[in-house]
Amino acid sequence: MNQLIIVKIGGNIVDDDSSLQNFLKSFASINQAKILVHGGGKLATKMAETMGVQQQMVDGRRITDGETLKVVTMVYAGYINKNIVAQLQQYGANAIGLSGADANAILAHKRKGKTTQGIDYGFVGDIDQVNVAFFNGLIKQSLVPVVSPITHDGNGQLLNTNADTIAQSIATAMSSFYETILVYSFEKKGVLLDINNDDSVIPIIDSNYYQTLKAKQQIFAGMIPKLDNAFTAIEQGVSKVIIGNAAELDQLIIGKAGTTIQNG
Amino acid sequence: MNQLIIVKIGGNIVDDDSSLQNFLKSFASINQAKILVHGGGKLATKMAETMGVQQQMVDGRRITDGETLKVVTMVYAGYINKNIVAQLQQYGANAIGLSGADANAILAHKRKGKTTQGIDYGFVGDIDQVNVAFFNGLIKQSLVPVVSPITHDGNGQLLNTNADTIAQSIATAMSSFYETILVYSFEKKGVLLDINNDDSVIPIIDSNYYQTLKAKQQIFAGMIPKLDNAFTAIEQGVSKVIIGNAAELDQLIIGKAGTTIQNG
Repeated sequence: MNQLIIVKIGGNIVDDDSSLQNFLKSFASINQAKILVHGGGKLATKMAETMGVQQQMVDGRRITDGETLKVVTMVYAGYINKNIVAQLQQYGANAIGLSGADANAILAHKRKGKTTQGIDYGFVGDIDQVNVAFFNGLIKQSLVPVVSPITHDGNGQLLNTNADTIAQSIATAMSSFYETILVYSFEKKGVLLDINNDDSVIPIIDSNYYQTLKAKQQIFAGMIPKLDNAFTAIEQGVSKVIIGNAAELDQLIIGKAGTTIQNG
Repeated sequence: MNQLIIVKIGGNIVDDDSSLQNFLKSFASINQAKILVHGGGKLATKMAETMGVQQQMVDGRRITDGETLKVVTMVYAGYINKNIVAQLQQYGANAIGLSGADANAILAHKRKGKTTQGIDYGFVGDIDQVNVAFFNGLIKQSLVPVVSPITHDGNGQLLNTNADTIAQSIATAMSSFYETILVYSFEKKGVLLDINNDDSVIPIIDSNYYQTLKAKQQIFAGMIPKLDNAFTAIEQGVSKVIIGNAAELDQLIIGKAGTTIQNG
């Protein structure tokens, strides 16, 4: 089986021109088949402020009303996606930017009604299906998919969807055809044992150790959805999940940096 | 040779939800291979106003400074493009939204310095090359390209590019492989002899008649760049160019409505 590297790049890197540029150079030079998934939270928040669109966040998640959906569609699928694609083209990667609506790449449904906590997230999509044949076709043409966190429901409605979950869903779906490696890259060196110590990276977390860390409340709350996504990926056929610093991408891919998530 | 229909949809239709929806239903039902090119001027102008970005227009053309490029990238390649794609998916067309940067679909260069009139248009792109192999590959997979008027220069720079010219360039480039029909659809019934009379549609304009109409100043100034594009297309291998009302798309394609442009 050929390798396929799926890299999620976090919002803080996307926000910083120089970090983003270095990351994209490094990403473009990956020899294996590859897919990039990006977020872009802060730029959307800034744009919403400029436009006078009120933003409501609950537990770090954005409530996506109609006006906010417009903002994130413009910022994620437009500004960020096309700038990343243009830069990757410059660095020699034949990138193609996508939302989930394009070629029906990622079909989702609007999260139903209110959650148990009484929260209505609005136009937020939970993923139903990844169009494996389409992604596979792009990869076979040596194209590099660049996926923005906007999906659709097949009935004309765009939906805001968590980029970590998109990366996990693509990695999982593609694992029937490739040895898939999922990399969550962001501004930290990995999963930290001490959130105030950047060098306290945990090199390997298996599911038992994860339960122990969670029980002891030693995992930073913001990291838990990412780790849950990582374990879902591993359980559903992804070969390796690595969490670490975008500036060390080449080292992350070969498992020489960051935190490796594994079963056991 | 198989037919390929390239439809440009104008900004006034894009601005009106109900006209756009009817147009997209009609476009989705075209049996032949097809490509949609869209503009979206007024939405970008409104968004620039909301964001406090000053807009400068010269002869109906936007001066694209850095902030304006950001606005048009968000609005054209993000909001408008992805909403059109999601709606076409709903109507059964397997649409894929593109800027010129995606898969290097349309390579352009920044218009050099100032024009003879002393105008610097800013980040405006003049087209160098259409990636025929890429468009052809999409069409062969029954995908429907939806092209936003943003191109790139191959060196990481996005560029604002006239949508009429993009439609003409794609039609011309594809005419080696298909019998291409280029349709400029907008809110008018065609090229009018009397701008104040919507029923004064000129059914056929050939190049001689065009020169006569121009000499007599009987052509509305705003129509001249569109007609120039139309004649360029015809001279470079496009089979037919038709200009007319987006609400009559099915009639335009078969030449039963609008203005047909022909050589002679």
